[in-house]
Amino acid sequence: MKEKDFIKIIKQTLNSEYIGDDCAYLKDLEIVITQDSLVEDIHFSLNYFSPFELGYKSVAVNLSDIAASGAEPKYLTISLSLPDKINNDFIEEFYKGCKSACPSTCQIVGGDITGANKIFISVCAIGSTQNRNISSRKNAKEGYKVVIIGEHGSSDIGLKLLQQGKNSPKEIIQKHLTPNAQIEFGKLLGSNIKQDYAMMDTSDGLMDTLSTIATESNVLLEIDFDKIPHNPQIEEFENWQNSILFGGEDYGIIAAIPEQYNYGIQIGTVKAGKGVNLKMDKEIINYTKTDVENKIFNHFN
Amino acid sequence: MKEKDFIKIIKQTLNSEYIGDDCAYLKDLEIVITQDSLVEDIHFSLNYFSPFELGYKSVAVNLSDIAASGAEPKYLTISLSLPDKINNDFIEEFYKGCKSACPSTCQIVGGDITGANKIFISVCAIGSTQNRNISSRKNAKEGYKVVIIGEHGSSDIGLKLLQQGKNSPKEIIQKHLTPNAQIEFGKLLGSNIKQDYAMMDTSDGLMDTLSTIATESNVLLEIDFDKIPHNPQIEEFENWQNSILFGGEDYGIIAAIPEQYNYGIQIGTVKAGKGVNLKMDKEIINYTKTDVENKIFNHFN
Repeated sequence: MKEKDFIKIIKQTLNSEYIGDDCAYLKDLEIVITQDSLVEDIHFSLNYFSPFELGYKSVAVNLSDIAASGAEPKYLTISLSLPDKINNDFIEEFYKGCKSACPSTCQIVGGDITGANKIFISVCAIGSTQNRNISSRKNAKEGYKVVIIGEHGSSDIGLKLLQQGKNSPKEIIQKHLTPNAQIEFGKLLGSNIKQDYAMMDTSDGLMDTLSTIATESNVLLEIDFDKIPHNPQIEEFENWQNSILFGGEDYGIIAAIPEQYNYGIQIGTVKAGKGVNLKMDKEIINYTKTDVENKIFNHFN
Repeated sequence: MKEKDFIKIIKQTLNSEYIGDDCAYLKDLEIVITQDSLVEDIHFSLNYFSPFELGYKSVAVNLSDIAASGAEPKYLTISLSLPDKINNDFIEEFYKGCKSACPSTCQIVGGDITGANKIFISVCAIGSTQNRNISSRKNAKEGYKVVIIGEHGSSDIGLKLLQQGKNSPKEIIQKHLTPNAQIEFGKLLGSNIKQDYAMMDTSDGLMDTLSTIATESNVLLEIDFDKIPHNPQIEEFENWQNSILFGGEDYGIIAAIPEQYNYGIQIGTVKAGKGVNLKMDKEIINYTKTDVENKIFNHFN
């Protein structure tokens, strides 16, 4: 897990409280900030992404982190590095896609363009924390509910279909190409919950999110697999349960919130203990964060 | 000029007042934001950049834009895409370089790491505009002084030496590898000037900066070449005057400020008219922005 090693070194070198979270919460400026990149032939291929879809997804993956912080998405900058083959139409369609993924409260305000041998896209997103209660992955507490929003598993199966040159079922494939950030759900929790709460998107896989919250909050999450929302069409595909649990890129949100709030779909409960107890096919398996890391989608693979 | 064409299309597609400036000034959040990328074998080569120097420069080029806005650099996020060859030592040295380029008021708070076939670095920088008067390239006015900070020409000549496998004169080469952002100069002007003023860094070349300010402010800048500060050692090299005027990457700052302020070195005056009148070898040549664009460093070349 090279990526995790690198993050450890960066944390040590910078000695910073911020590094490691999806968003940095800059209290003095009342903003959160996040930055995520998409690299050609690592995160996407032009064989199956249109320029519009690529723009849309580049923005959505960053808005997803802002939504999961509980902040309001406000501004984006986009840095593009492009090979010579890219023409004016690509640029126009790409930015139409970017704009289309932005809610009305959010606009694109800058960035830069350079040359490169492959397409590199790096988006920085800023959210306002005014009148919002900002989440932390350290804030899951015993007795809290674990809730979820968004169907899971479709993005991973959609990717596999695209890689096989297929373009249907449309609904599943589109979940990979143009995922939606759960901005309304983030707003609901960020605006209404008064206590500390945990929230994270499921970009790196649902089990990664659950095990990260469990580890960082030093609690056990008891999760019922059957309650995790998914598109029933995915049940036709091989290993669809793995796609739900470890596939990633669904950009749903998981939160651990006090009992009295009724947001999203409850999939479990926070208990004393460690890791994630996943109830599936009448068995309960305990996953530590390391167990999950050995299974999940890794950008260096 | 593909880059300029692309920016035109982006402006049209997004219909945004922000696109095209080095920093976006987000008044409601009291911040400026900028994002700039460095791509391996386009902007740098590991044949002559150490990981420390690469980290240093990646941060400095972004702080330079914040400084030239008149804001106070506060936070950075860094997105890295890295080939498999990169090891732990590289990461540690790179981030030591990043940290070393940060003033004490500024810290690195996030970003991400992914795989890639070449090194791709994208840095986003945030500055606080509290108690600062923010510059605009549209604000040069008749009667203002044109002032400069920073030696020019060394970076371009340093790059040529490095590309020839040379590593001296050290002072010239280091100006290319580890340029310093003019943060104190930005602070001086941003904190003290009460009127509108224009300020821009010279990242894309001194004449690019001058002609951009002239065009955007709809004025003529009369500039005396002999007053532009440079290291006398560069006079030994061929076309050193071109390196001063068009070379780029010196990360100095040019400002057009009201007469009563004595900051930097005065190199000229703002007059009614268009473009830049450059006095050099007793001749005066008028450069339009298009003349300059045909000459300058272009990342797509």
